[in-house]
Amino acid sequence: MNFSSKNIENAVNAFASLPGIGKKTALRLVLHLVDQDPGATQEFAETLLTMRQNIKSCQRCHNLSDQNLCSICQTPKRDQKIICLVEGIRDVMAIEDTAHYYGLYHVLGGVISPIEGIGPEQLNIDSLIQRIETEGIQEIIMAISPTIEGDTTIFYISKLLQHKGVSISTIARGVSFGGELEYADGITLGRSIAARNPYNVQGD
Amino acid sequence: MNFSSKNIENAVNAFASLPGIGKKTALRLVLHLVDQDPGATQEFAETLLTMRQNIKSCQRCHNLSDQNLCSICQTPKRDQKIICLVEGIRDVMAIEDTAHYYGLYHVLGGVISPIEGIGPEQLNIDSLIQRIETEGIQEIIMAISPTIEGDTTIFYISKLLQHKGVSISTIARGVSFGGELEYADGITLGRSIAARNPYNVQGD
Repeated sequence: MNFSSKNIENAVNAFASLPGIGKKTALRLVLHLVDQDPGATQEFAETLLTMRQNIKSCQRCHNLSDQNLCSICQTPKRDQKIICLVEGIRDVMAIEDTAHYYGLYHVLGGVISPIEGIGPEQLNIDSLIQRIETEGIQEIIMAISPTIEGDTTIFYISKLLQHKGVSISTIARGVSFGGELEYADGITLGRSIAARNPYNVQGD
Repeated sequence: MNFSSKNIENAVNAFASLPGIGKKTALRLVLHLVDQDPGATQEFAETLLTMRQNIKSCQRCHNLSDQNLCSICQTPKRDQKIICLVEGIRDVMAIEDTAHYYGLYHVLGGVISPIEGIGPEQLNIDSLIQRIETEGIQEIIMAISPTIEGDTTIFYISKLLQHKGVSISTIARGVSFGGELEYADGITLGRSIAARNPYNVQGD
């Protein structure tokens, strides 16, 4: 691309360094900022700077937070005896969006993956065990991706927690609600038959 | 979406205010910045601020520029007798990318559109006429979109320039190179037959 201005070129390259933004999209965003008042760019830049300077990791659950404890950990109404163990902060948001869970979280920061060089010591496992020992946690729900790495991580952590007096569960796996069986992938469908649940006729 | 942090929410909203960026994409971009060093966000924000504070409109052709005159107007090698008239700065970039044009430009800033309330007085037409009268311009190439508004604009400006002693041309319209005739739209195909060119056998 031919830019008549070095400033435009730098700004396009800055946007294009973000994931999923190509040069053409970056140019569209830059020209949008040029079309607006300088104040709009100022506000945009300042919002990002304020965010990056003030964002913290929750000292208890490692969720993103504005304070030392995140807003979930600070809510006394939530069930303080259950921890939902997730890989990342995106999973916290996804589960919060369902409005089906009212306990606490613990963000692992990834899964054990020898290929990517991620071992247990790089994950927030020590702080999880400490929480279980000090906070009187009764249940751990493992909401980890159903992949080989995820299953390895679940197995590893379950072994560590074996004699800690907490019950361990994993989220249900099977065919999606609203999906049609013929489009479900073979492994999911096969396992959902193997892991079938007894059906209770309502009213019994 | 549930954000555990107000800072994250503000940053997501800032990105989502840009055109073509939804909340999910915005969240991905914000989490990318959180994953990086704070210095990366600082640099990103400063690049945008520097761009917005220093970007100017070229005093001669209204192209985006870092200085009073844009880099194209400052190049003495370019043919100073031809002006290519375009709607916007994106068109300048597109034509520059072809490397088929070595004259100057003039950015109109839009086309005449009564529906959108854009009249000739909102476009850079006065400065075009002034350039023609003072710079000894010999040819104007109208590289304006082949739409009703574009054609109206071409007609309006041609009338103004009728007795100024410049030759006026429009860019060629017809079927695209490499395209197949059966997929060309009917209007383009019909007009390209009406505006057929005599064919010269090479070597004659």
